[in-house]
Amino acid sequence: MRTVFTPLHALHAPATEFFRGERVPCFEKVDRARYVHEALVARGHRVDAPEVDSRPVLPQVHGERYLAFLESAWARWLALDPANAERQPFPSTWPIRTLRADREPSEFSAQLGVYSMDNGTPICAGTWDAAKAGADAAATAARWVSQGERAAFVATRPPGHHAGPDFMGGYCFLNNAAVAAQALRNAGAARVAVLDVDYHHGNGTQAIFYERADVQFVSLHGDPRTEFPFFLGHADEVGAGAGQGFNLNLPLPAGALADAWFDALAAGMARIRAFGAEALVVSLGLDTFEHDPISKFKLSSDDFLRLGERVASLDLPTVFVLEGGYAVEALGQNAVNVLDGFESA
Amino acid sequence: MRTVFTPLHALHAPATEFFRGERVPCFEKVDRARYVHEALVARGHRVDAPEVDSRPVLPQVHGERYLAFLESAWARWLALDPANAERQPFPSTWPIRTLRADREPSEFSAQLGVYSMDNGTPICAGTWDAAKAGADAAATAARWVSQGERAAFVATRPPGHHAGPDFMGGYCFLNNAAVAAQALRNAGAARVAVLDVDYHHGNGTQAIFYERADVQFVSLHGDPRTEFPFFLGHADEVGAGAGQGFNLNLPLPAGALADAWFDALAAGMARIRAFGAEALVVSLGLDTFEHDPISKFKLSSDDFLRLGERVASLDLPTVFVLEGGYAVEALGQNAVNVLDGFESA
Ligand SMILES: [Zn+2]
Ligand SMILES: [Zn+2]
Repeated sequence: MRTVFTPLHALHAPATEFFRGERVPCFEKVDRARYVHEALVARGHRVDAPEVDSRPVLPQVHGERYLAFLESAWARWLALDPANAERQPFPSTWPIRTLRADREPSEFSAQLGVYSMDNGTPICAGTWDAAKAGADAAATAARWVSQGERAAFVATRPPGHHAGPDFMGGYCFLNNAAVAAQALRNAGAARVAVLDVDYHHGNGTQAIFYERADVQFVSLHGDPRTEFPFFLGHADEVGAGAGQGFNLNLPLPAGALADAWFDALAAGMARIRAFGAEALVVSLGLDTFEHDPISKFKLSSDDFLRLGERVASLDLPTVFVLEGGYAVEALGQNAVNVLDGFESA
Repeated sequence: MRTVFTPLHALHAPATEFFRGERVPCFEKVDRARYVHEALVARGHRVDAPEVDSRPVLPQVHGERYLAFLESAWARWLALDPANAERQPFPSTWPIRTLRADREPSEFSAQLGVYSMDNGTPICAGTWDAAKAGADAAATAARWVSQGERAAFVATRPPGHHAGPDFMGGYCFLNNAAVAAQALRNAGAARVAVLDVDYHHGNGTQAIFYERADVQFVSLHGDPRTEFPFFLGHADEVGAGAGQGFNLNLPLPAGALADAWFDALAAGMARIRAFGAEALVVSLGLDTFEHDPISKFKLSSDDFLRLGERVASLDLPTVFVLEGGYAVEALGQNAVNVLDGFESA
C-alpha cells in the first residue's frame, strides 16, 4: 500500500504528562512512529513524504482562533521566561459549564485551559511542526486516493481523533482523520465515512462533523463510563441538526473479546454501506490490542489482518490514519497487518 | 458583631494543590480561620457555633447530583484502594465544549472532572464535613440577621464564591454566600444583594443567581483576562432571562490602587440601592490587601475599616462571609477591621 511518513513527527517529544494527578512519562512516544515506519519498510510498502499543504483544509475542521493559538503556543510560553525552554506548560483552569470560552484570556495557562480538554496533552517546542506535518500527511493520502489509489496509510503521530473543533486532548492536536475526510470531500466525494476503531472514542472527530450530513461518523470503543474520554461516545449520540442520524457510536464494555468487537464492526460497516459513502477514512488505533498497556480489549495480531480484510469488503477508496496504540514494539506489526489484510482481500 | 465559627473547618486540610502544572503547598490553609478567630476574640466580638442545618438550602443553590458526589467523594476514593487514604485525588479530564456532563462516568477521576473547574481545589477526608459546617455557619448568620441582628460575620473556610451550581473550583466547594442569600430569601427578604469584594471574581455566585431577578450580584475584582477565574467576570455579563440586569461586574486592572477600588465600590453600592435590596450578603475576601501573596490590588489595613464604614451606609441587614485572603497573619486584623468599621459607622 502507498504510505506517507515524515521524520518531523519526532519534533513532538514532551517528557511528561499528567495521569490522574500524577506526573508520568508520556505514553505517546516517538518510538511509536519509528516502529511503524520500520514495519512498513520491512514488508515492502512504498513510503513517501507528505506533498500536500493541509493549511487550506485546517480551518474547515478547526477554529481559526485555536489554530492561531496552537501555532504560537510555544513562542508565547518562551516569551514569559526564556527558562521555560526547559519546562512544560500545563493548564490549571478549564471553562466548563457557566464559564466562558468566547473571550481568550491573556494569561498563558488560562489560554491553554481554553483550548484543552485535559492535562494529559503536553506541548513542547516542536508540537506545532509535528502536528502540522501529520495533517499534511493526511491531506497527502487523501489526494492520492482521490487521484485513483485504492488506499493509502498515514503513518504519523501525534494522533488526532480526540482533537475537537477548538481544543486539544488525549495526545491529539490536529485531527488528521477529519483533515483526510474533509480533503476527500473537497476533492469531490459527495459522502465520506469515518470509521474509528481506536480503543478510545473519537470525540474530536464526532464533534467536528456532528451537525453535518456529508460525513458519517462510526466509532467502536470502550464504554466512556469507564474509559477515556469519559464525556462522549454514548450510543444516544446520533448527530444533530443536519447531521441527525449521521453519527453512530458502538461502545463496548472494557474487556470485550474479539467476537463481540467484530460483531460491532459489522454493524458499523452496515451503516457505512447504507449511508452510500464514496470514500472512507479509518481512524486506525491499535490500542484494541490484547497487550496494550492502557486499554482493555482483546484483539490479537491476527485479528488485525481480519480487520483489514473486513474493511476491504466495503470496496471504497480508503485512507488509513494512525491513531493510538501503546504496545510500542507490536505497533508496527499490528498496523501493517491491517494493511496487508486489506490488500489480500 | 455577632459571629459564627466552628473548629470543624480544620477538617479540610489537603497537603498540596496544582498551580500551573506544578504541585505546591496549599495557599488555602487551616491557619487562615485560626487567625481570624483569634482576632475576633481579641477584639471582643461574640463568637458562637453554627446552630442551623443548611441541608434544606443547599439544593436551592447547588445541583443534587453535585451534592451527592461531594458528600461521598472521599469514600468513593478510598473504595478504589485503601492506600488512597494517604494520596490526593485529582481530575485529569474536563467536560468542556462539545463534551457531556449530563451522564456521570463511573470512573472516579472522571467524576471529579465533571464537578471541577480546575485542578487547584483538592479534597481530603474531611472536606465535606468542613464545607458543610461552613454552609451551616452561613445559614446560621442569615437566621440571626433575619431575626433582627443588624449584621453577622461567618468566619469560615474553605471559601465558597467560586463554587458553581454543580462544580467546585478555586478552593471552594459549597457556596456559603449563596447559601446565606438564599436563606435570607427563604426567611422573607424579597430582594437580596450579594456584594463580592474578593480580589477574584465570584463566578460561582454569579452563575447560581444569573437567571434570577430576586438576587442582585455585584462583584469588584481583578480583570479576568489576567486573573483567576479567567473565564467569567467581564463587564458585559449582565444576567440572563429573568435575571437580565441583575448582575454587575466591575473588573479592575491588576495593580489598581485604593482610590480606583473605592470608586468601583461606590458604583456597586449605587446599584444595590437602586435594586431595593432588603438584605445584603458581603463575600468578604481580604486578598485585595497590598501584601497578599497571590493578588495584585493595594488596599491597606486601614482601607478595610473604610470598607466596613461604606457597607454600613447601605443601612441593610448584612451577613459578611469570609472568602479569600492569603496574607495569613494579617487576615484576622483585616477581617475584623471591616467589622469594626461597619459597627463604628
Ligand atoms: Zn486510543
Ligand atoms: Zn480570592
